[in-house]
Amino acid sequence: MLGRLNHVAIAVPDLAAAANQYRASLGAEVTAPQALPEHGVTVVFINLPNTKIELLEPLGADSPIAAFLVKNPSGGMHHVCYEVDDILAARDRLQADGARVLGDGNPRIGAHGKPVLFLHPKDFCGTLVELEQAG
Amino acid sequence: MLGRLNHVAIAVPDLAAAANQYRASLGAEVTAPQALPEHGVTVVFINLPNTKIELLEPLGADSPIAAFLVKNPSGGMHHVCYEVDDILAARDRLQADGARVLGDGNPRIGAHGKPVLFLHPKDFCGTLVELEQAG
Repeated sequence: MLGRLNHVAIAVPDLAAAANQYRASLGAEVTAPQALPEHGVTVVFINLPNTKIELLEPLGADSPIAAFLVKNPSGGMHHVCYEVDDILAARDRLQADGARVLGDGNPRIGAHGKPVLFLHPKDFCGTLVELEQAG
Repeated sequence: MLGRLNHVAIAVPDLAAAANQYRASLGAEVTAPQALPEHGVTVVFINLPNTKIELLEPLGADSPIAAFLVKNPSGGMHHVCYEVDDILAARDRLQADGARVLGDGNPRIGAHGKPVLFLHPKDFCGTLVELEQAG
């Protein structure tokens, strides 16, 4: 059931500085910033040969990563995103095993235009897990 | 300079439970546990199509992840590991840009038998970054 690692998301307090560090010091390919007001973040992607890193900066008053940055002022790893072939089948299997799906339990359209769900970190080794419908 | 994402490491308080959850609930391919006493951890790998997740459990009295689990009792994302072609060139470039390399600044042999270095999380968006010599 578990497919590719779609991305690792890192919340940062200063997107321009973080993007520049990955570009200049690590020689990485970094995309231009995209504001996603409906998700409360501005994002850049670091394109690695096999996956990508998403750097997230809060956008707007109700950013879902604002509280995380209060607790982690330098930034930090925020979530991992795994691809699954069938997000509803994955959800049903996880819920049957006792895992909690955040929100109302229904997929919503994520930052890549595909259905996504988030699983409760307490049910996954302290890790916020995003599942994204592949393809 | 920056190559593949070699792995994401997640520290967990109970390796058997975490491995079982990834195997049973997420349908992932999980390797048998390997004790690495010289690194103070027991590890399993979750093999994804494009990269892997390392689940780490403390081993022995001086485990380098013990303090992390005191702060994060449910576990959590511990570090990301990027591959680089030339670890000494990468180190010199990073140090010239002001990044701090942990330890004495010299690569040591990591869990995969290859030279590795760790960068100070405060210099990398709050993220502990491991660099591993590729190939």
